[in-house]
Amino acid sequence: MENNYVVIMAGGIGSRFWPLSTTSNPKQFHDVLGIGQTLLQMTANRYKNICPQENILVVTNSSYYHLVKEQLPFLNDNQILLEPHRKNTAPCIAYACYKIYGQNKDAAIVIAPSDHLILKEQEFETTIRTALSNTTEHDCLMTIGIKPSRPDTGYGYIQYEEDNTDSVIKKVRTFTEKPTLDIAQRFIDSGDFYWNSGMFIWSARAIVAAFEKHLPEIGNLFCEGLQVFNTPDEKSYIGKIYPVCKNISIDYGIMEKANNVYVILAELGWSDLGTWGSLYTHIQRDEQQNAIVGDNVMTYECRNNMVMVPGEKLVVLQGLSDFIVVESNNTLLICKMQDEQKIKQFVTDIKTQKGDTFI
Amino acid sequence: MENNYVVIMAGGIGSRFWPLSTTSNPKQFHDVLGIGQTLLQMTANRYKNICPQENILVVTNSSYYHLVKEQLPFLNDNQILLEPHRKNTAPCIAYACYKIYGQNKDAAIVIAPSDHLILKEQEFETTIRTALSNTTEHDCLMTIGIKPSRPDTGYGYIQYEEDNTDSVIKKVRTFTEKPTLDIAQRFIDSGDFYWNSGMFIWSARAIVAAFEKHLPEIGNLFCEGLQVFNTPDEKSYIGKIYPVCKNISIDYGIMEKANNVYVILAELGWSDLGTWGSLYTHIQRDEQQNAIVGDNVMTYECRNNMVMVPGEKLVVLQGLSDFIVVESNNTLLICKMQDEQKIKQFVTDIKTQKGDTFI
Repeated sequence: MENNYVVIMAGGIGSRFWPLSTTSNPKQFHDVLGIGQTLLQMTANRYKNICPQENILVVTNSSYYHLVKEQLPFLNDNQILLEPHRKNTAPCIAYACYKIYGQNKDAAIVIAPSDHLILKEQEFETTIRTALSNTTEHDCLMTIGIKPSRPDTGYGYIQYEEDNTDSVIKKVRTFTEKPTLDIAQRFIDSGDFYWNSGMFIWSARAIVAAFEKHLPEIGNLFCEGLQVFNTPDEKSYIGKIYPVCKNISIDYGIMEKANNVYVILAELGWSDLGTWGSLYTHIQRDEQQNAIVGDNVMTYECRNNMVMVPGEKLVVLQGLSDFIVVESNNTLLICKMQDEQKIKQFVTDIKTQKGDTFI
Repeated sequence: MENNYVVIMAGGIGSRFWPLSTTSNPKQFHDVLGIGQTLLQMTANRYKNICPQENILVVTNSSYYHLVKEQLPFLNDNQILLEPHRKNTAPCIAYACYKIYGQNKDAAIVIAPSDHLILKEQEFETTIRTALSNTTEHDCLMTIGIKPSRPDTGYGYIQYEEDNTDSVIKKVRTFTEKPTLDIAQRFIDSGDFYWNSGMFIWSARAIVAAFEKHLPEIGNLFCEGLQVFNTPDEKSYIGKIYPVCKNISIDYGIMEKANNVYVILAELGWSDLGTWGSLYTHIQRDEQQNAIVGDNVMTYECRNNMVMVPGEKLVVLQGLSDFIVVESNNTLLICKMQDEQKIKQFVTDIKTQKGDTFI
């Protein structure tokens, strides 16, 4: 357990969750389910039996330091890794993993997004423990694959090699990003495709070796940093290398290239909570199938709506069906659920027409 | 002109205009058209060429004293008549008319609701002048009849006696409150029914005589007050008589009973702005027929909506048609335009479920 580490990635913006999620206060810092915990807090709590609290690291953008500190007060400053620029997942993961490697060569690391939902806690713990012990033994790279329940075109898919054993750990054959509906359906039918959860488990040794082999331009920068990580010079070193660091995802940079990549098959009640519609399916609904977060919402002749408003605000809705109604940051969004993919465009339009104040 | 007086009735609640209109800040004190003037201010301005400013009286509920004072700063306290209780229009009108009668026996008085819209200013002035001079000559009671443009079931109708002259002043035959659609259509077809605007013109003598004849229980109370009106004892006297004063409308108590009642026929671009739907027809609309009050409202695939939100608030609407969207007093209402008559029920429900805080 002392060799187990968790790296929580909490630097994203979550623009599909606008206007709740904004650049200055993104989704992971909100109690989007209305249950009294933010997604970041839920994520950290999920690992309380997996590793010591002092082995939890959060990587985030510099501007979110205070939000992280406030929501996870048990973290000391050496556990909050601040990125001066957004550079996709590979640099973020390299920073955290090299830093951990500098502390403990025998570390086994879980990489976890901060804004996902996992309903089946027991299964989750079992999956993580199995993955951690396996990756420690074999110095391999592992991703958590989620048994797909529908041909979702918003997720990545992992195809594994059938080995005719009942082991939940399988060698990965291919990664496929967001397929068409037709292809997604064929993936589901074939039975050997799982959703890519974006959660990774590996030994520090394995990931360091993988960076050196597949992304040396990033690996070298962080390898040189091993002397300064966990010293007062860390911050200035990070400030120096981030501007020149390649902007690339870990999937594209390493997972799709390495040949020691495995998937652990799981059913976790998982959702990436990527959109209002996916959140809708995870919030308690009333008899008319309205999912409502807010203390003073009154509905008349309303069905299948996702409503999220500040607790104290009085909201009266009449005659609405299949809509998203969200008020946050003194901004109101009313949008058809089926058109929620347009929210990204609204945000772009607002930036163009109104400037950054509103986003 | 020195004998002309205007009494503006500004004590109503306007609950069909919730959540903009609330008990603590009703409709007449709002700039509902988004043009920089409240309805009360527009009403007062309408009479600037009719009578001296010092002859404008506002009757309102005690709780709105500061709103009136703020919006019409030219009024001195003797021009702001405060009702301690809501008692419908007859006591309100009696108070103002007896008070004026105490100042000037030759007064000619216009009674005007504070929350109506009149688009044709010239025609309005001509109508008022004609009515004032006529009522002064004949000591009669006159109401302004509006040429109906549709079989509206929300208005009262006045039938006049056809005298085969082109005079715009006609003797009234009947008053009919809110008819069914079928009957309203027959009224329109018959040609001798006009809408009752709720604006009255009469000499002080005529209305005082009418109270004594048709509503003596109210008339006597205010007649006795003639000694104290316009003295420091006025307020305490009003406080004493209002609790025992009959709650009755001027239409029911006098206009429907008196036999010296006339109507002056007019086309004024008039609306009582009774509901969001009637307001919708009077606000400038965009190409998609959305009437929008608010500086930062963005619409996508939206048609025929009435939107009123605070100026600074960012609002993004997508996929909405034929809805009312109003935010006011930290309260949001979304309601189908065709169901706007339900708003009164919402307000009742809120009082029951949430208490008076929100209304």
